[in-house]
Amino acid sequence: MARIVMKFGGTSVADLDRIRNVAVRVKREVDAGNEVAVVVSAMSGVTNQLVGWCQALSPLHDQSEYDSVVATGEQVTSGLLAIALHALDVRARSWAGWQIPLRTDAAHGRARIEDVEGEALLAAMASGEVPVVAGFQGIAPGNRISTLGRGGSDTSAVALAAALQADRCDIYTDVDGVYTTDPRITSKARKLDKIAYEEMLELASVGAKVLQTRSVELAMKKRVRVQVLSSFEDKPGTLVVDEDEIVEQAIVSGIAYSRDEAKVTLRHVPDRPGVAASIFGPLSAASVNVDMIVQNVSAEGTTDMTFTVGRADLARTQAVLEENREAIGSSNVVVDPDVAKISVVGVGMRSHAGVATTMFATLAAKSINIQVISTSEIKVSVLIGAEYTELAVRALHTAYGLDAA
Amino acid sequence: MARIVMKFGGTSVADLDRIRNVAVRVKREVDAGNEVAVVVSAMSGVTNQLVGWCQALSPLHDQSEYDSVVATGEQVTSGLLAIALHALDVRARSWAGWQIPLRTDAAHGRARIEDVEGEALLAAMASGEVPVVAGFQGIAPGNRISTLGRGGSDTSAVALAAALQADRCDIYTDVDGVYTTDPRITSKARKLDKIAYEEMLELASVGAKVLQTRSVELAMKKRVRVQVLSSFEDKPGTLVVDEDEIVEQAIVSGIAYSRDEAKVTLRHVPDRPGVAASIFGPLSAASVNVDMIVQNVSAEGTTDMTFTVGRADLARTQAVLEENREAIGSSNVVVDPDVAKISVVGVGMRSHAGVATTMFATLAAKSINIQVISTSEIKVSVLIGAEYTELAVRALHTAYGLDAA
Repeated sequence: MARIVMKFGGTSVADLDRIRNVAVRVKREVDAGNEVAVVVSAMSGVTNQLVGWCQALSPLHDQSEYDSVVATGEQVTSGLLAIALHALDVRARSWAGWQIPLRTDAAHGRARIEDVEGEALLAAMASGEVPVVAGFQGIAPGNRISTLGRGGSDTSAVALAAALQADRCDIYTDVDGVYTTDPRITSKARKLDKIAYEEMLELASVGAKVLQTRSVELAMKKRVRVQVLSSFEDKPGTLVVDEDEIVEQAIVSGIAYSRDEAKVTLRHVPDRPGVAASIFGPLSAASVNVDMIVQNVSAEGTTDMTFTVGRADLARTQAVLEENREAIGSSNVVVDPDVAKISVVGVGMRSHAGVATTMFATLAAKSINIQVISTSEIKVSVLIGAEYTELAVRALHTAYGLDAA
Repeated sequence: MARIVMKFGGTSVADLDRIRNVAVRVKREVDAGNEVAVVVSAMSGVTNQLVGWCQALSPLHDQSEYDSVVATGEQVTSGLLAIALHALDVRARSWAGWQIPLRTDAAHGRARIEDVEGEALLAAMASGEVPVVAGFQGIAPGNRISTLGRGGSDTSAVALAAALQADRCDIYTDVDGVYTTDPRITSKARKLDKIAYEEMLELASVGAKVLQTRSVELAMKKRVRVQVLSSFEDKPGTLVVDEDEIVEQAIVSGIAYSRDEAKVTLRHVPDRPGVAASIFGPLSAASVNVDMIVQNVSAEGTTDMTFTVGRADLARTQAVLEENREAIGSSNVVVDPDVAKISVVGVGMRSHAGVATTMFATLAAKSINIQVISTSEIKVSVLIGAEYTELAVRALHTAYGLDAA
């Protein structure tokens, strides 16, 4: 017998038939003798409609009202799934965030979980009842409904699994696991049986949108074993676990890519102490997330500063740089949105040299120019022209021996 | 300065434009220096969709899950209206039933209000903030969401007005007041400036579906002054008040009709003590609401028993009578669904004789046969053939001097 949290995303509960299908899956785990708690998202499309209404009434709407409106989507699904479970003779009841309670801070619209009181749910589970928890939501100070931000249901599920000391947190989604790279780019992509938290984190943050980044961070911190699997097919998915659990660790686990980047170059910036702060301070204050940064070697007292930002932040970035033109000492800004970031990820590279070299050589052999490089302990990322994305991913997938047999 | 509860029904908040229109009306009351609390229904159509989903998953669904699903409709509207008010620079916040809290009993799906804690709302109003309350819902024992049954938002509004000691409870709807009869039947129908609680109750229960019966009962018990008015036009509506407030009381205030009746006659029932109980006991146990009852004079030891039930209950009524055939001593059941109940209502008839006589004479003059008669202190009702409904209503409207000049 195991204690399992099962989480179903929006496409898995998109209509009544799919909700019935989810009920069948839950019943199967219950019948196998497991203690089960379920976390659900809103039926797909519902959240967008609710968000659209709030924005139409006032683009600068109050976030706590937004939360109260948008959180209803998950509340509906949780009640409907409880009814569908009853129809299969499975004892179940829905739980809204405030009923658990799942406490968050007061940052409405993007609240962080502070505490999950698991006692009532554990008692329900021990009595043979399946709690069906509305994901994505909690209760903020002042007794107001809060939401965790887009994709927050994954985080709800992991936090719940931690609070309930669950053996596993199964995230059911519309893909059947985590792949060595995007299967739409190469048919040779392989599904991974296991992946380390750190790797998943790097993959999630560079565009493999299987799990929300925050949920992986939380899983890593709380050591929650997460499984990503399909809600439409019956087969094991990918386990996201501590790297110690992975016996045969490949050097490189996967190749990720992101087309949501834009490159910004500031030409002829005075090469003096404090110039980086004068650029990145105001950007940070404007909530622009700067990713890769390179500074060229100084020539004649000036330097070129290149960095990447999310493409959605590009206009804001240009406005901030324009406003701070005098402090920066340069207004010669060159932007390029036609770039892609390609990343090679693997905890194995901690103990292996030459991973970056292989990457550079592989791209060079395909005549792909590298514009920016950044590295971390378990990742090497390069910025290239967007048109080379697929070519680069396929070549690297082969070069690191990831191709399916 | 007055303290006012404003309630807006589903058609008044049917889309974003109408919600904006509601916000303008609320702002007008606030700008006039009033303390205002608002109660809203779900956007029209939403509740039906949510109910439909529950029924599709399981016709015998758990009522507490049903409540949790269906109550989201009002939660959405309350958040959206708060946002619309902010856009007009009116301070406002939404309140779900559990946040107030508005406590109910545990009869999920048709809960009764037990207590409304008005302190938090009064404090908010005193600080200049408009509470926007999700109608139709409360919190039941065990921290579960409950709903008050169809039309319950009117009851929410009246209960809130009582708890807040409001000067008035304005019910905004798609009609502009209470009429002497249905304006679709005669263009001579007049809007009443005032109507007594007792009259409104009789009119509501016989088919003038302006206010939910329970809300009128509650208003009468708590002496809440209710105004029914249009959310689309700017003009005074009808005040529902204590009869002492109505100086020039007409003998008859209105003519109501209901086509939702069916007549049931049990022929040749043994004329002995206990026979009525043997018929109406089982019907009551089956939740069939029996309205008018007449028993003919006994002939040869048997009697005919005639009564009316809601047409929707007719099939169930026949089944119950069939099951209890032996105890009743008759299986000769004649049903007639083609009947209408016409009622003449007025608190003035307490002190005036001849009201019923006028009714019978008027119908006789039009050759309309009266099938069943029942009377109360302030009402005379007759059952007639459904095809005569309009003819009877128009004739009575004229006979009692209700026609507009």
